[in-house]
Order: sequence, then C-alpha cells, then structure tokens
Amino acid sequence: MFFQQIITLQRKRGFHLITDEITSAMPQLKDFNKGMCQVFIQHTSASLTINENADHTVRKDFEMYFSKTVPENDPDYEHDYEGSDDMPAHLKAALLGSSVLIPIHNGRLALGTWQGIYFCEHRNYGGHRNMIITIWGE
Amino acid sequence: MFFQQIITLQRKRGFHLITDEITSAMPQLKDFNKGMCQVFIQHTSASLTINENADHTVRKDFEMYFSKTVPENDPDYEHDYEGSDDMPAHLKAALLGSSVLIPIHNGRLALGTWQGIYFCEHRNYGGHRNMIITIWGE
Amino acid sequence: MFFQQIITLQRKRGFHLITDEITSAMPQLKDFNKGMCQVFIQHTSASLTINENADHTVRKDFEMYFSKTVPENDPDYEHDYEGSDDMPAHLKAALLGSSVLIPIHNGRLALGTWQGIYFCEHRNYGGHRNMIITIWGE
Repeated sequence: MFFQQIITLQRKRGFHLITDEITSAMPQLKDFNKGMCQVFIQHTSASLTINENADHTVRKDFEMYFSKTVPENDPDYEHDYEGSDDMPAHLKAALLGSSVLIPIHNGRLALGTWQGIYFCEHRNYGGHRNMIITIWGE
Repeated sequence: MFFQQIITLQRKRGFHLITDEITSAMPQLKDFNKGMCQVFIQHTSASLTINENADHTVRKDFEMYFSKTVPENDPDYEHDYEGSDDMPAHLKAALLGSSVLIPIHNGRLALGTWQGIYFCEHRNYGGHRNMIITIWGE
Repeated sequence: MFFQQIITLQRKRGFHLITDEITSAMPQLKDFNKGMCQVFIQHTSASLTINENADHTVRKDFEMYFSKTVPENDPDYEHDYEGSDDMPAHLKAALLGSSVLIPIHNGRLALGTWQGIYFCEHRNYGGHRNMIITIWGE
C-alpha cells in the first residue's frame, strides 16, 4: 500500500506544531498495521523537524537559538539580494532538514509521548508551503 | 516484507556506538536482498546520527563540540525549569535528528567501512530511551 | 518494486549540485507512479542535503558558513592526527546528514522548483565517494 497527499500550510516566521494537520490529511493511516510516513517540504527556506510538543516556550527558544546561531547580515554572505533573512533561511533549512520520517504502528504515527512535528518557517514572509505526505507499509 | 521491533537502551550523556545493538535486534536483516532500515528514537532530548566508528576520540569531540555550540544557561532560554541541560538537549536533538535511514544490501546494512550508528544522549540523566527499528524490502 | 544502484563521485571541498547525476543513474524512476528515493553516502567526512539549485553563491555561502561555524584547529579537538580538516568534516557531516529521502510522483523526483540535491565534500582532498541510491514504490 502506498498513498501520497499534498497539503499546503502558511505560518509566520518561527516553529509551529503541525502533527494534527498531518494526521488529519492522511485518514488512511488507520489501515496500516506497520509502515512508514514521510513528510517532505518542497522549499529551501522552511524545514521540518521533530521535537517537544507540550511547552510553547520550547518553540520560542528554537527561534531564538537558530536566529542567533545563523546570523542575518553577515558581511561574508554573497547571496543577499532577497533580503537579510534569505541566506540564513537556507542554512537553517539545511541544519534542520527538509523531511521527517516516522514509523507507523497499529494505525498511528509511532511518535513518543512528547514528540510532535514542527513546521519551521525561516522567512519573514514565507508564503504558502507545499508538503508531500507519503505513507507505505502493510 | 515489513518488520518492526522496539528496543530500549540507556547510556550516559555523550555519543555512543550502537550498530551492534541494532543489527542484533533485527536477525531478519539477513533475509533481505534489497531494502531499507530505519531507527527512530521516541524522545526529544536524545538523537541518532551516523559517524566514524573506529576512534573513540571522535565521539568525545562530538560531545565537546555540541556542548560548546549549544550552550547551557543561555539567559535567553525561556524553557529552563527542567534543568540547564534540558533546552540544549532539545536543540541538539533537532540538529542531529531523531532517526537514521540506512540501505540494506545482500542481507546487511550497507554502511561504509568507517560508518557506525551513534546514539546521542543529551541529558545528564537521560533514563531509558525507546527506539523503533523498521525494515522493509525484498 | 525495489531498485538499488551505487554511484561514485569526486568533487573538491565545497557544496555541489548533483540532482542530474542522481536521476541519470536511475532511469527506472520514470516507471514509478508513487514511491520514494533515498541517496545514502557511505562516508563520514562528506554529506548530502537539499537546498537552492539556482544561484551558485548559495553554495559558496554554505561553505563559508559551515567552515566558520565548525572551526578547524580548535585546541579542544582530540581527534586531529588526520589533519585540521578532519574532525570538522565529521561534525559537518553529522549536522547535514548522510542521506536525503525524496518522494517520487508521476515518474519524477517530487522536488520543489528551487530544490536540488547537494553533495557536500568537507575534506580538502576527499577522494572518491560512494553513494547508494535506492528507490521503491509502485
């Protein structure tokens, strides 16, 4: 069994929980005994990762840390004509990754108790972001 | 063919080779001609990556580098009530990732000569960590 | 359907687009309606990621950023006998990852308009690098 679905989301700059949006878009999950689910974002200035799902200050601290670690306006950047947030967005996307891959077990994503899927928007005005969800298994 | 297995490991803070633990837990690997193996950790303060398997000083340098790059006690952290190692552990987990995905070829993980699977424990007292191993292929 | 292919590439230190090399090595892609493609690099001093495919200054800025963020000659490194670029190469490989996983849709890699596959060579003289391409689906 192989299913594929595209969803489009838009969020402001920062880190956002989207576990519910992913599972709602894939009702077929419940038919899988064992399988895998990948979410892939088709952009290079936004990314996906998995982290703490309970305390919103974790997501605020992610934005603080990555903005400090990947500075804007570094005079060494050559790629700067799309704005000061552009090259840092590409670097953050590479550090965090453009996809997450999660096992499916007994009809559900086998996330740990405290795990959620983060949509990481690195541009000030990111626009709509397409994500392809693919699930396979038996 | 699809197999899934949960294992539980506990290690002290730092970077630890667990290639043997993964392959021992999945004796079905030898029945696959071509396939994939994912290891997924169900926690947000520990992570998995692939790196050098021979010299233990590489693992020591990983702990040194990541502890320097993701500092404890940054006054900008808001999420700090679980201890000074908590928010840095979440960030390190996101930088390294919560899973590894390795091809299977001729009944074995197709790792390079110098590659091993690292279990990265980012908390001072991390407790037991569940990992889900999934293999599929033919 | 499951296909596996090994390719070998050599590039100088830096970030290089290899999307065409990957798709050329896998003509079977066109036979898949829905599927997945993984590229896995069998080395610990080189890595793979997905990022901007149009402006070569993005790749130059990647090399600049990662070389600044993961410094050579840190006196705290213990693993230094293979040269000053060795331990930083291992760390960069872990930050970026040893594989990319891309959905296949209608016979093509479902990359976004601006996405390409980067081969990231972190050693000054990296030699030949083996990559295993695996595709599966229906």
